[in-house]
Amino acid sequence: MKRPETFISVNEAKIKLSKVLSERITLEEELVKIVDSPGRVSSRLVKAPFNRPRVNLSAVDGYAVRSLDTIGSSTFTPVELVIKGVLKPGGDPDEVCVEPGFAIRVHTGAPIPCGANAVVMDEDVKVQGDTILVFKPVAPGANIILKGEDISENSVLVEPGTLIRPAHVTALASIGVNALHVYRKIRTSIIAIGDELVEPGHPLSKGKEYNSSAYIIYTQLVRDGIFQVDYTGIVPDDTEAILDAIKREVSKGSDLIITVGGTGVSETDKIPELLEEYSSPIFRGVRMRPGRMTSASVVLGRPVLSLSGFPVAAWAGYELILRPAIAAWLNISGFERPVVYAYLARRLPNISGYTSIVRVSLAVKNGKYYAEPYMLRGSGVISSLLRTHGYIVVPEDTEGFEEGEEVPVYIYT
Amino acid sequence: MKRPETFISVNEAKIKLSKVLSERITLEEELVKIVDSPGRVSSRLVKAPFNRPRVNLSAVDGYAVRSLDTIGSSTFTPVELVIKGVLKPGGDPDEVCVEPGFAIRVHTGAPIPCGANAVVMDEDVKVQGDTILVFKPVAPGANIILKGEDISENSVLVEPGTLIRPAHVTALASIGVNALHVYRKIRTSIIAIGDELVEPGHPLSKGKEYNSSAYIIYTQLVRDGIFQVDYTGIVPDDTEAILDAIKREVSKGSDLIITVGGTGVSETDKIPELLEEYSSPIFRGVRMRPGRMTSASVVLGRPVLSLSGFPVAAWAGYELILRPAIAAWLNISGFERPVVYAYLARRLPNISGYTSIVRVSLAVKNGKYYAEPYMLRGSGVISSLLRTHGYIVVPEDTEGFEEGEEVPVYIYT
Repeated sequence: MKRPETFISVNEAKIKLSKVLSERITLEEELVKIVDSPGRVSSRLVKAPFNRPRVNLSAVDGYAVRSLDTIGSSTFTPVELVIKGVLKPGGDPDEVCVEPGFAIRVHTGAPIPCGANAVVMDEDVKVQGDTILVFKPVAPGANIILKGEDISENSVLVEPGTLIRPAHVTALASIGVNALHVYRKIRTSIIAIGDELVEPGHPLSKGKEYNSSAYIIYTQLVRDGIFQVDYTGIVPDDTEAILDAIKREVSKGSDLIITVGGTGVSETDKIPELLEEYSSPIFRGVRMRPGRMTSASVVLGRPVLSLSGFPVAAWAGYELILRPAIAAWLNISGFERPVVYAYLARRLPNISGYTSIVRVSLAVKNGKYYAEPYMLRGSGVISSLLRTHGYIVVPEDTEGFEEGEEVPVYIYT
Repeated sequence: MKRPETFISVNEAKIKLSKVLSERITLEEELVKIVDSPGRVSSRLVKAPFNRPRVNLSAVDGYAVRSLDTIGSSTFTPVELVIKGVLKPGGDPDEVCVEPGFAIRVHTGAPIPCGANAVVMDEDVKVQGDTILVFKPVAPGANIILKGEDISENSVLVEPGTLIRPAHVTALASIGVNALHVYRKIRTSIIAIGDELVEPGHPLSKGKEYNSSAYIIYTQLVRDGIFQVDYTGIVPDDTEAILDAIKREVSKGSDLIITVGGTGVSETDKIPELLEEYSSPIFRGVRMRPGRMTSASVVLGRPVLSLSGFPVAAWAGYELILRPAIAAWLNISGFERPVVYAYLARRLPNISGYTSIVRVSLAVKNGKYYAEPYMLRGSGVISSLLRTHGYIVVPEDTEGFEEGEEVPVYIYT
């Protein structure tokens, strides 16, 4: 490990990267149709321009009445009211009013006609030709959905920075909004680095290895919805070649460049050399395991994040640094992974001074989660991600967690 | 409520619908690029054709040695070995062998050269020109990642029915697979029904209401990844018009048609009439709240699911019936919503004989979740979905849940 004293904490890395992202990337707004907005981040405040429902509605199938007219009614002394008309959903509540001694038939969702202040349910009346018999009094407001009960005028439906879910879309549709201002996607280029790498689908010659780390980054970014991701292929362990690839992506208009691989301290790993010579570093090395060689820098004015070539270490760098940095930069709410609390099936010692990301499998017993850490060493162990359900973060300033301790587990989504 | 005695349980509805889906829809396979496979469901078993790593690799930067040569070494009596060459990741392990008294420099990830059975870390040697001094013995296998340690030959990476995540993509890439057989998406048409409905973005005349329920279904289906969703617009409350719309979607090749609205018992709601006259019912009415008018039938040979026109009830019908029915039909693993266990902040009584879906907001206190049920009545209350984090299912055969009881909460994703 070269110069570990220069390594910074995961939190410092997140803050530094977030700052550079906000300084170097101008993320304009764009207007998207609401149906295309889930997974995007709103850039503006959206308030309800009117109440929902806009007028009082019937919550049931029944008869709109004046509450006063039903006073004194009972099974033995029903009140008789004359049916004056019918109002369906979408009907005009001012067309016919309910006058004393009258009732208007209403369907569920129909507006409450003028003059009425309560609805008697079908179950509580008997229809006799043009009249109904009401057998018990109804209080004012009975079976009425009040205007604004769901969404009141001027209430906030979407804050800037909200990660849009289907529920937001429905709320927006209900107040007539069919398009939403969101941040445009972050144009992100992924470059795989390594002499030994061969793309899947091609024959593998001796000593070579299939490129896999760039694929977990690519697919996770696509899945997280806010990136427009371009995977640009494999570049050899050659400083000029790497620099050329970065230059090409910058000229194509990338906001952010992610390199995967080449971060080690071997003579073949060119990222450290590149950082020294051609870029201004943001940070170089992070006190995290796996992924301690994760670095970030500015090359040609663009932020470049250099992730490890080992799949789990690359994933950890995204999960613990880039993703939180972006959430902080755009102040995104709702971007956190789901968390469950689980009892640790065994002790998780920490390496003092390092933040560890530990994959765990979860089991449920009597409505409690138990987390079994996946102990197989090696940041290249892909199967650890397949066989687990989420991860625990052991902070750098703790001794670790004890067996039986209840700890938060972040769930893969 | 018309003929509630014919209502079936949520579980029966799921089973019946699942059976019809499997009988009526032929879901062919398609081959997709692995980068496009997350969120899709695999249709085949995928086994690893070879070990990963394929050969033993060095886990560290150091020197590949014969363990035997290091026996007896100590700080005071180091063993001197001659450096015979260097092996980088991607190098040929059979080019030069480690003979007694020799060592080969290896980088992290480099294959272990023939003859060697251990690696001494850089930290534990001193380089003197062409030789190294080893200060402590290394056991056979030390600092070596064994071939097959991550993924062993013939081990199963993907089962049929697996919902693909980024980790699967990485695993597939690592064994050279660049395309995966998945079920093609389920071609699904959504039809909104209602005289009172106006599409968002258009002016709203008196008594009309913006169409919102179809949008939560559309976006949730798109988000769930396995549907190819076509929203076809609003159809009036007219049996012929609804039937024509269904016919049109059938002729366009839809696998599944979802109607939203028109399921009530008012004279204006045409779905019950349609079910009686033109279709063979799968079920008509479900013992669930909200969403008790949820129905399903076969029209022109195609399954038609009729969801309520109220947004929350429509969502509940998808969440509790269609989604689980599809998971059962395709035997999907990994399709469940994330679950947390939370203490109920207040009693949740059940209406005997009905399954209730109750939205809750979650708060964390001392590493425990507390769930606050959202009590505002009304299946049309969209804000209930905005202000909550997930839902509790109160099964029909219980009295409900007590205050303080720990219950599973399904998290919105």
